[in-house]
Amino acid sequence: MSVDRVLPTPEARELLELVRELAVKEVAPRAAAGEAAERFPRDLFLLLGASGLLGLPYPEEHGGAGQPYEVYLQVVEELAAAWLAVGLGVSVHTLSCFPVAAYGSREQREALLPAMAGGDLLGAYCLSEPQSGSDAAALSTRAVADGDGYVVDGVKAWTTHGGVADYYTLMARTSPEGARGVSCFHVPAGLDGLSYGTPERKMGMRSSPTAQVRFDGVRLPADALIGSPGEGFRIALAALDGGRLGIAACAVGVAQAAFDVASAYARERRQFGSRIADFQGLGFMLADMATSIAAARALYLDAARLRDAGRPYGTRAAMAKLLATDMCMRVTTDAVQVLGGYGYVEDFPVERHMREAKVLQIVEGTNQIQRLVIARSIVRE
Amino acid sequence: MSVDRVLPTPEARELLELVRELAVKEVAPRAAAGEAAERFPRDLFLLLGASGLLGLPYPEEHGGAGQPYEVYLQVVEELAAAWLAVGLGVSVHTLSCFPVAAYGSREQREALLPAMAGGDLLGAYCLSEPQSGSDAAALSTRAVADGDGYVVDGVKAWTTHGGVADYYTLMARTSPEGARGVSCFHVPAGLDGLSYGTPERKMGMRSSPTAQVRFDGVRLPADALIGSPGEGFRIALAALDGGRLGIAACAVGVAQAAFDVASAYARERRQFGSRIADFQGLGFMLADMATSIAAARALYLDAARLRDAGRPYGTRAAMAKLLATDMCMRVTTDAVQVLGGYGYVEDFPVERHMREAKVLQIVEGTNQIQRLVIARSIVRE
Amino acid sequence: MSVDRVLPTPEARELLELVRELAVKEVAPRAAAGEAAERFPRDLFLLLGASGLLGLPYPEEHGGAGQPYEVYLQVVEELAAAWLAVGLGVSVHTLSCFPVAAYGSREQREALLPAMAGGDLLGAYCLSEPQSGSDAAALSTRAVADGDGYVVDGVKAWTTHGGVADYYTLMARTSPEGARGVSCFHVPAGLDGLSYGTPERKMGMRSSPTAQVRFDGVRLPADALIGSPGEGFRIALAALDGGRLGIAACAVGVAQAAFDVASAYARERRQFGSRIADFQGLGFMLADMATSIAAARALYLDAARLRDAGRPYGTRAAMAKLLATDMCMRVTTDAVQVLGGYGYVEDFPVERHMREAKVLQIVEGTNQIQRLVIARSIVRE
Amino acid sequence: MSVDRVLPTPEARELLELVRELAVKEVAPRAAAGEAAERFPRDLFLLLGASGLLGLPYPEEHGGAGQPYEVYLQVVEELAAAWLAVGLGVSVHTLSCFPVAAYGSREQREALLPAMAGGDLLGAYCLSEPQSGSDAAALSTRAVADGDGYVVDGVKAWTTHGGVADYYTLMARTSPEGARGVSCFHVPAGLDGLSYGTPERKMGMRSSPTAQVRFDGVRLPADALIGSPGEGFRIALAALDGGRLGIAACAVGVAQAAFDVASAYARERRQFGSRIADFQGLGFMLADMATSIAAARALYLDAARLRDAGRPYGTRAAMAKLLATDMCMRVTTDAVQVLGGYGYVEDFPVERHMREAKVLQIVEGTNQIQRLVIARSIVRE
Repeated sequence: MSVDRVLPTPEARELLELVRELAVKEVAPRAAAGEAAERFPRDLFLLLGASGLLGLPYPEEHGGAGQPYEVYLQVVEELAAAWLAVGLGVSVHTLSCFPVAAYGSREQREALLPAMAGGDLLGAYCLSEPQSGSDAAALSTRAVADGDGYVVDGVKAWTTHGGVADYYTLMARTSPEGARGVSCFHVPAGLDGLSYGTPERKMGMRSSPTAQVRFDGVRLPADALIGSPGEGFRIALAALDGGRLGIAACAVGVAQAAFDVASAYARERRQFGSRIADFQGLGFMLADMATSIAAARALYLDAARLRDAGRPYGTRAAMAKLLATDMCMRVTTDAVQVLGGYGYVEDFPVERHMREAKVLQIVEGTNQIQRLVIARSIVRE
Repeated sequence: MSVDRVLPTPEARELLELVRELAVKEVAPRAAAGEAAERFPRDLFLLLGASGLLGLPYPEEHGGAGQPYEVYLQVVEELAAAWLAVGLGVSVHTLSCFPVAAYGSREQREALLPAMAGGDLLGAYCLSEPQSGSDAAALSTRAVADGDGYVVDGVKAWTTHGGVADYYTLMARTSPEGARGVSCFHVPAGLDGLSYGTPERKMGMRSSPTAQVRFDGVRLPADALIGSPGEGFRIALAALDGGRLGIAACAVGVAQAAFDVASAYARERRQFGSRIADFQGLGFMLADMATSIAAARALYLDAARLRDAGRPYGTRAAMAKLLATDMCMRVTTDAVQVLGGYGYVEDFPVERHMREAKVLQIVEGTNQIQRLVIARSIVRE
Repeated sequence: MSVDRVLPTPEARELLELVRELAVKEVAPRAAAGEAAERFPRDLFLLLGASGLLGLPYPEEHGGAGQPYEVYLQVVEELAAAWLAVGLGVSVHTLSCFPVAAYGSREQREALLPAMAGGDLLGAYCLSEPQSGSDAAALSTRAVADGDGYVVDGVKAWTTHGGVADYYTLMARTSPEGARGVSCFHVPAGLDGLSYGTPERKMGMRSSPTAQVRFDGVRLPADALIGSPGEGFRIALAALDGGRLGIAACAVGVAQAAFDVASAYARERRQFGSRIADFQGLGFMLADMATSIAAARALYLDAARLRDAGRPYGTRAAMAKLLATDMCMRVTTDAVQVLGGYGYVEDFPVERHMREAKVLQIVEGTNQIQRLVIARSIVRE
Repeated sequence: MSVDRVLPTPEARELLELVRELAVKEVAPRAAAGEAAERFPRDLFLLLGASGLLGLPYPEEHGGAGQPYEVYLQVVEELAAAWLAVGLGVSVHTLSCFPVAAYGSREQREALLPAMAGGDLLGAYCLSEPQSGSDAAALSTRAVADGDGYVVDGVKAWTTHGGVADYYTLMARTSPEGARGVSCFHVPAGLDGLSYGTPERKMGMRSSPTAQVRFDGVRLPADALIGSPGEGFRIALAALDGGRLGIAACAVGVAQAAFDVASAYARERRQFGSRIADFQGLGFMLADMATSIAAARALYLDAARLRDAGRPYGTRAAMAKLLATDMCMRVTTDAVQVLGGYGYVEDFPVERHMREAKVLQIVEGTNQIQRLVIARSIVRE
């Protein structure tokens, strides 16, 4: 089903139509096989870059598309509906560009953004560590000043695109003072001392490698630093605000995809002499699913419009991430239910959607961390 | 707490500020006493009319304010947060004007809308009957053509403003053919044969009378008919689409009011040596409440923007009504919980909000009817 | 509907039948008027005492019935279904007897239990204070040794039967050492210096007064002390374990009563040409309600059987209280929904049940405190 | 964690201890590898048979153990906690024995039950078909009388143990009259014309084959018929009542296993300087999980006791299946959440539990069918 969207401009409408066509023709048909083969679809990211879809919210002068977040996120949603590994990949890539785009020097922006937006440089984002997940500020990877550069040692965990990315946006400790001792670096792949763990054996999204990234005496030049020393945690939090909206959009896409399969099935499948969608038992369930999808979409768009208007949006982004991903878990679980036994097997994509949904409640801050963020904003008032 | 709203124009922002001030200063302080006394605050509707708040979405040429639904609904939300009887009263009144505004002749519009928008004529809406509630098309009140007019006999039930309204927008049967045999009429109060039942003894919203309206040979002139004969049910459904958005806005307002009390209490009340808001148990609960309020608001605004863009919005309005009122029931119930024993007594307004919330799941189509409406749109695809 | 219960003995089956008859004939018919008049039905407690229902779990030698908790609680459930003020009154009374029955000296037991079990002495339980609710160990009411007795000063809050009880089981501070400085006392009504606040204006259960109990230099004799000095908080917690099961049973009773009304209505009411119970939308809702009631009943019985077997049951009692009262809130809210507008008015008892349900999530430890108790038992493992 | 169970006899307590030891030592250690290899652990069923665990609720005279359902189900629960393929296998096997045990002739019982109870004959149950799932009475597989036997043609779908069972308990149509035209047969594996589809590629429980069973002119002798001709659907429904309790017990086992992993992890994992279990955000979540597990267990035991007492228990069994499996889905999803990223990977078993949980909402009647069964019992009253 094509979602009835209110878009801000005719251009945005055209963009969404183009994306939808690309998603349906190029992305969705490869999802099942790609997941089964656990093979990362690097070529699709080249295609997305060539189509102008990898730098949507960044300035046109550096190869971006200058689109509002409101539009960018709906693109992510459509891609995630086709294949989460791609939609989430775009979101993570966009997140990994953010520090350079927002805090980088003019030289850094000019040097890096065009290739980032064009798909030649695919990014990853290294914040979590084995012992510091939710408590990100406790990270222990060190970047020690050495001559005119830095030497990095430590292990990053749960890195999406770990081992397949062309660069890693790294948060590392440059001084011992907790959150204030963290700095942000741009680390190209291929440096000496940089290695990757075996990809995690995940419940879903297996085509997209998640792996440890290990820094063993990796030397970085001075201009690898993004922003000021000690500014890293602030950058990381700002990046996460946007990243959370990306996850919310992914969740809406996955849920919509599962809903579309379930509702189509319910219109076809007959039992007791009727289409099962005609029974209120199923019909009300589908109504609740559709309603909660619409609400999650409306909420992430609402947060995006706050951001686009230049107003504080971090709390509302956390709300959108929390609500959308919890919704996605429920809706995909119910979508399997609508198909009954057929939902539980790989012949239909809904079991994949359900396995994909779960990761969204965890990444970019677990939903418990989102609640913490929101609760703090309430307590502060 | 003042909600951080994205509004379409500076005028809209000013309007909302004015409404908020009026709500806080003129409406909210009278709510508790008005409910206790079960006295309808007719004078407040005169004030609202004088302030230009009773015809917001209707054309300026007839005394309306020509505001988009997106703005009108946020006004309703703020008024409902102050006192549901007033916010819901505005929504019902706006609903009762709709047939004249959208289907009336130029003469009818010129004759009626200015007084409706100005607060001199307060409206009510007569659709439900004792035996036809959810199944509205089964209504049995008859309007029989007689000379150059009609004679009406029957009983309408659950009429908000029943007995205090200045006119009744009536759906009555002019022919036996089910939904197609219903016509819409404008019935001024005070006609011979028009009488009212004792107001229902409701769990909440006691200041706003809900009563039967009885038609015993009530004679209507020919120009009491709004739209064409047999067009009544179509008008009623179109009116309900807008009315449902009004209820959704009311639900968000009531929930926000309860949340504001609960979060303020949680920031003050200390147990075990800390503010209770600082305990994650309470903090996460408040976070979930705030998130679901934000989602419901975003969803009704999303539906309103569809309407404002001239696109079909009935399904999304049903979603907004369903989601917002179920949310309001949960949030107000939890708000009482945050206050513990103090929440269960009349010293704080949250027990009132909880009693008010329940009616919103029932009016303008129970939430079961909303699910039916949504399910049908899914089945039709 | 008569619930299909598995009871341990034929005597228990007879007892339940007797109670059900008494509940249906003597208690239920007076509930609506009693609530409207806000009048405490003291005479019903005499009748219950005369029927042997006020000391069910206490030893026969002191006038009790020696019944297992499994049976006692189902009696409470049936009474609460008829009128919560009575069912909860029995639970609170039984709680107020517990310290004497379990920790009292032989003299205290002989002197007090027969009249407590017979209904001549109705009890209340004074633990909470205005500033110490969930954090009960922080209580500040003092009992200072004076001659051969004590002098009590302080204010107790939220006391069920406050002002109508014949005695108050009091927790007061005899030394400053936190939980270990609390002692338990038996305080007959009518002592000098004992006074009561105006009953709270509650959302529901208005026939049962909840009031502050104020101690202003109240002198108690030495034998008012129950158990050892400093043992009070331990007694209070043990009493609460049983009290929580009483609340769970009340919640199941109220939910069952609301369900019975709703399901009967759904079998009668016709819309769209069928009984509304025949529509899956309503039918599934009723099925979920019935299922959650059955689960809550099974869980409180499970906890009761642990207690009856002499095994630790506090955690499971907290689970039963939490689950049953949250269930009751949902089920009664849905019961109102089943009746639509008719559910929202006083003509049917479901709106009363919904108002009653809310208090059960708060008393004998809010449901947040129950979660804390359960969480601690998980952490301890 | 060892669950604190109230068991009816010392023998039952010993049995449960033995089962728990066997589950922990023999079953659980093989689950992960067995699932990864998608290999059916046929040998474990021999071990279970040798240990007397395959005919628990059947009479001792035929090799059963004569245990009440209350005890049998707790055995299933413990096995399912160790490895769902085994626990569910026992439940399905027990279901497949039921027609012979309850409706078979003395000769059939003597000939078959000892080997069924001993583990030599592993059973499967053939009711569903590709076009008749929820609407089981619409089945189309035919058994045509032919000489002194029957010839069977048709396709059965979703058969647990399909292709690895030693016999198939078959429901086939012997006359066209809907539910009354169905008869029950015992079909040994290995007959000419009997073949199996490729096992379904399921989201979970991959070690246990689920496959189509195809009957192509399969000849059965006269004594393959169990019960009377036309009695098959009644037998099937009676078998399902018991089977649903088996699924409920499986769901409780899987949920308990996931909870045990999650709570242990939460007691170990430190973030922000504390064990994460000490944060109320996680602690309350664990409390809710533990509570809902306890309630589901109490409910299936309650239904089992009704059955053991010889009273109608079908509605309560449907409630237990519905509640327990919905609970299991929620609890396992939350268990993954407690572990965060670690929960989403195969290093911990919770992601397997979550995938297993989903199938339980579908088998032995989807939870929609359970609601239908319960709703009908409410409507009938």
